[in-house]
Amino acid sequence: MHRYKCIISYDGTQFAGYQVQPEKRTVQLELEKALRKIHKGDEVRVSASGRTDAGVHAMGQVIHFDSSYSFPAENWEKAMNALLPDDIAILRVEKVSQEFHARFHASGKEYRYMISLSKKRDPFRRNYAYHFPFALDSKAIKDAIPFLLGTHDFTSFCSAKTEVEDKVRTIREIELVEDNGLLVFRFVGSGFLYNMVRILVGTLLEVGTGKKKPSDVAEILEKKDRSFAGKTAPGQGLYLWEVFYENK
Amino acid sequence: MHRYKCIISYDGTQFAGYQVQPEKRTVQLELEKALRKIHKGDEVRVSASGRTDAGVHAMGQVIHFDSSYSFPAENWEKAMNALLPDDIAILRVEKVSQEFHARFHASGKEYRYMISLSKKRDPFRRNYAYHFPFALDSKAIKDAIPFLLGTHDFTSFCSAKTEVEDKVRTIREIELVEDNGLLVFRFVGSGFLYNMVRILVGTLLEVGTGKKKPSDVAEILEKKDRSFAGKTAPGQGLYLWEVFYENK
Repeated sequence: MHRYKCIISYDGTQFAGYQVQPEKRTVQLELEKALRKIHKGDEVRVSASGRTDAGVHAMGQVIHFDSSYSFPAENWEKAMNALLPDDIAILRVEKVSQEFHARFHASGKEYRYMISLSKKRDPFRRNYAYHFPFALDSKAIKDAIPFLLGTHDFTSFCSAKTEVEDKVRTIREIELVEDNGLLVFRFVGSGFLYNMVRILVGTLLEVGTGKKKPSDVAEILEKKDRSFAGKTAPGQGLYLWEVFYENK
Repeated sequence: MHRYKCIISYDGTQFAGYQVQPEKRTVQLELEKALRKIHKGDEVRVSASGRTDAGVHAMGQVIHFDSSYSFPAENWEKAMNALLPDDIAILRVEKVSQEFHARFHASGKEYRYMISLSKKRDPFRRNYAYHFPFALDSKAIKDAIPFLLGTHDFTSFCSAKTEVEDKVRTIREIELVEDNGLLVFRFVGSGFLYNMVRILVGTLLEVGTGKKKPSDVAEILEKKDRSFAGKTAPGQGLYLWEVFYENK
């Protein structure tokens, strides 16, 4: 068997998320359908670096799969793109060792969250950014960021629905950039809990509108209780931007 | 009665075009539905500067309607945006004289056509640009443009389905700009026939790939026969950008 790593991009708008669910259109379903065609009806299981929710986008999700075929990488790319629907694109295929695992070997991830600040709503951004036409104090948001950096128990910033036990994660970078009417948050970290980026954004927006003080963020971390953090920002603003691996 | 002019924007992806058609979701249908709610069930007829086809977008379509209500412009804007689906936005409302007509008084229009040149397909552009990952000689395209400028009978660049008799139109500007992996055509003219911009783009792309010579465009105009021009470029690349009126 040969193992292949793929970097993929998808527009999450028409998907019920990444992971297979009964009766739903998901990214994993479409990937496995395409690979089954290439493998003449044989089931091929795809493993991703992690799930993304309904409406959430990916610029650089990573998956791997095993195959008895050993086509060159470009042929895999062409064959898969030809069979996939046009809201998923295979950006790159690479043959990797049997030890590589898209999820277990990921050493970190970058997520971005896009917020449209324009007063008027923009039909072209409705599925690609969170429309937030309110005054924001970006200095207050920037003052809150240092409290979140580093290694913390992020229980307060994690959906109560999660089954993961260990809620300690490390955030290496949070950056806030304004670009052409869009406010872009960049989060780089060791890994992120279920809904963590969206709850971080929802909480930082409450700091930006003055509903919370920058230092409240430190207290929310301390509480280890989801109910103290802000609202979960909507999925359509979120992009899984890149997945990092230490040893290729 | 009071007459209101509105500048509207819509993402054409989920519409079967602008104009009402039985059993189809159209922009006009949604506008008239919203206005009917504001008018407590009374029918309000909306007139646009012109139709747009399925999948075609608008950054600045213009419509007008009559109402017995005389709300300030901002209240119309808020009320309509609150009732419209989020793929249509009212950008501006203005009270105009009873003589104003969105279609008959339009003195010109600007259309833009977006082409994605990237070799890899981009899931985020699939509904918003025409993916054309082939080598293009933009000098050849620019050499063809002067043959199209000015006043001509555009029968060759018009869908054979059209019912309009007079096919003489004036193109005042055609500009080609490359921006961040997108090739953007700008067309400004007195008015455009059915499918005219899309057939012009399809033909200019054939000049760009070398299938046609720049001077062929002059011959195609002469023929007054649709079959000599290039293919109709797909709808998702087309944007009705602005409608001009001489006397506001």
